[in-house]
Amino acid sequence: MLHIIGLGLADEKDISVKGLEIVKKAERVYLEAYTAVLLVDQSVLEAYYGRPIIIADREMVESSSDDILADADTKDIAFLVVGDPFSATTHTDLALRCRQHDPPIKTRTLPNASILTAVGATGLSLYAFGQTVSMVFFTDNWKPDSFYDRVKDNLKLGLHTLVLLDIKVKEPNLQALARGRIVYEPPRFMTAAQCAEQMVETEETRQEGVCGKDKLAVGVARLGSDGEKIVAGTLEELSSVDLGTPLHSLVLCGTNMHEMEWEYVREFAVDQNKFDEIWKRDYAGKS
Amino acid sequence: MLHIIGLGLADEKDISVKGLEIVKKAERVYLEAYTAVLLVDQSVLEAYYGRPIIIADREMVESSSDDILADADTKDIAFLVVGDPFSATTHTDLALRCRQHDPPIKTRTLPNASILTAVGATGLSLYAFGQTVSMVFFTDNWKPDSFYDRVKDNLKLGLHTLVLLDIKVKEPNLQALARGRIVYEPPRFMTAAQCAEQMVETEETRQEGVCGKDKLAVGVARLGSDGEKIVAGTLEELSSVDLGTPLHSLVLCGTNMHEMEWEYVREFAVDQNKFDEIWKRDYAGKS
Repeated sequence: MLHIIGLGLADEKDISVKGLEIVKKAERVYLEAYTAVLLVDQSVLEAYYGRPIIIADREMVESSSDDILADADTKDIAFLVVGDPFSATTHTDLALRCRQHDPPIKTRTLPNASILTAVGATGLSLYAFGQTVSMVFFTDNWKPDSFYDRVKDNLKLGLHTLVLLDIKVKEPNLQALARGRIVYEPPRFMTAAQCAEQMVETEETRQEGVCGKDKLAVGVARLGSDGEKIVAGTLEELSSVDLGTPLHSLVLCGTNMHEMEWEYVREFAVDQNKFDEIWKRDYAGKS
Repeated sequence: MLHIIGLGLADEKDISVKGLEIVKKAERVYLEAYTAVLLVDQSVLEAYYGRPIIIADREMVESSSDDILADADTKDIAFLVVGDPFSATTHTDLALRCRQHDPPIKTRTLPNASILTAVGATGLSLYAFGQTVSMVFFTDNWKPDSFYDRVKDNLKLGLHTLVLLDIKVKEPNLQALARGRIVYEPPRFMTAAQCAEQMVETEETRQEGVCGKDKLAVGVARLGSDGEKIVAGTLEELSSVDLGTPLHSLVLCGTNMHEMEWEYVREFAVDQNKFDEIWKRDYAGKS
């Protein structure tokens, strides 16, 4: 059986008791390491779980899944996913391969905490979020703005938008590649500040009143860990806030932000007076 | 410190390793028991955690939170929440009281699996969900239909809707109450079938093409446990499907349902030919 096990968000102890029991007994243990990262190193996980871990990068999952699934019809294989397995598309992909495998391989999924719900730590109600969007690193000539339309759809309904931020791990250096050598770039993780900046930049192009510099947002870092950090403010303010080490995310507030949400989130404001003023003027249920 | 700890969805072993360590050492352990339930009894939790558990019903949390917070400025109190703490409004409520307490009480929240993400087990992408709605038990003269407008908003964008189903625990028997006695009704949990039926009933009144009997939906039961069950079909079909013991939820599919989602979810169909036919006719990106 293939056990797809969520690890939660912060460290080696966020795995469930049930998940840990499976990891300790599994024939092989893989760790999906390209859509999210834990805040601790592989060696910490290996020491705590008492098991060697095979890192499954995108190439392995997409091209060599037969290696991962070898003997899984008769033995227990553990496939670890940071956060919640269902929040990563890897899950559906692998589970479909198991179904189509000959003989079919049983799968079992152990859910865990996800950024999709941990973002409730901001005080914003999870029931007032619309669809989630992703933000990729802009380059000089590639600034995809499809996120803008979805945020706009959410805002029309007064809803918050969770923005998940790009991470680049194991990206080949293009100059080295041109010379026939594979050298990997150091990992890069988008910060909440970079995201806020890209949103304001996109607003300057699109000008439809979706994510200008006066819009309220909340930046979050390392949610679910002891070092979690939450900062609220305008997109302009957040553009210059340093939330520290990865992972970051950002929430663009919906205009229906309820008084109880406001009361909670304002405690995290860079400038509480400004936050209150903008909330009363543009939010507080004004859609 | 008040530790608000998510228990996950199924049983005593879905708590995180970190959460279990806190429970074992806490001064007192409370269990929030009115917005969701685990699939195991309190006694199973107590035996496994090795600690007595105080059941915190709605009245205690809303009116006697001082009892819960007593000594929490100097001692560790554990407050357990089924699923993820942020998915329950109890969390914000208690955390605000801790902030306003004199002296202030520190809080820490340990996230865990939530139905909001575990619903990914259906194969429907979590990034294609709009806002979540709740469905309450209809009575002869009370059939609130505010859910209908929000589902309609989601459908306009082609998005899926997760419908969370009513549970009634510790409801006083009204006849006994009229005679001055407090007798509690047995707990009631809405089934996916009841939800499907109420949606079709509401469509018959509203007639705006949101949740008629031919709409595709997915009923889920006991997600995250070994006994989890997923059934896909029209709302009419789901009205007569018995998914067994609680808890159930339902997803109304969005018209943008992607081919990869369809390929996964059709395996759960009551009648696969019918499911495929309706998907090709009305879904597959037709908004």
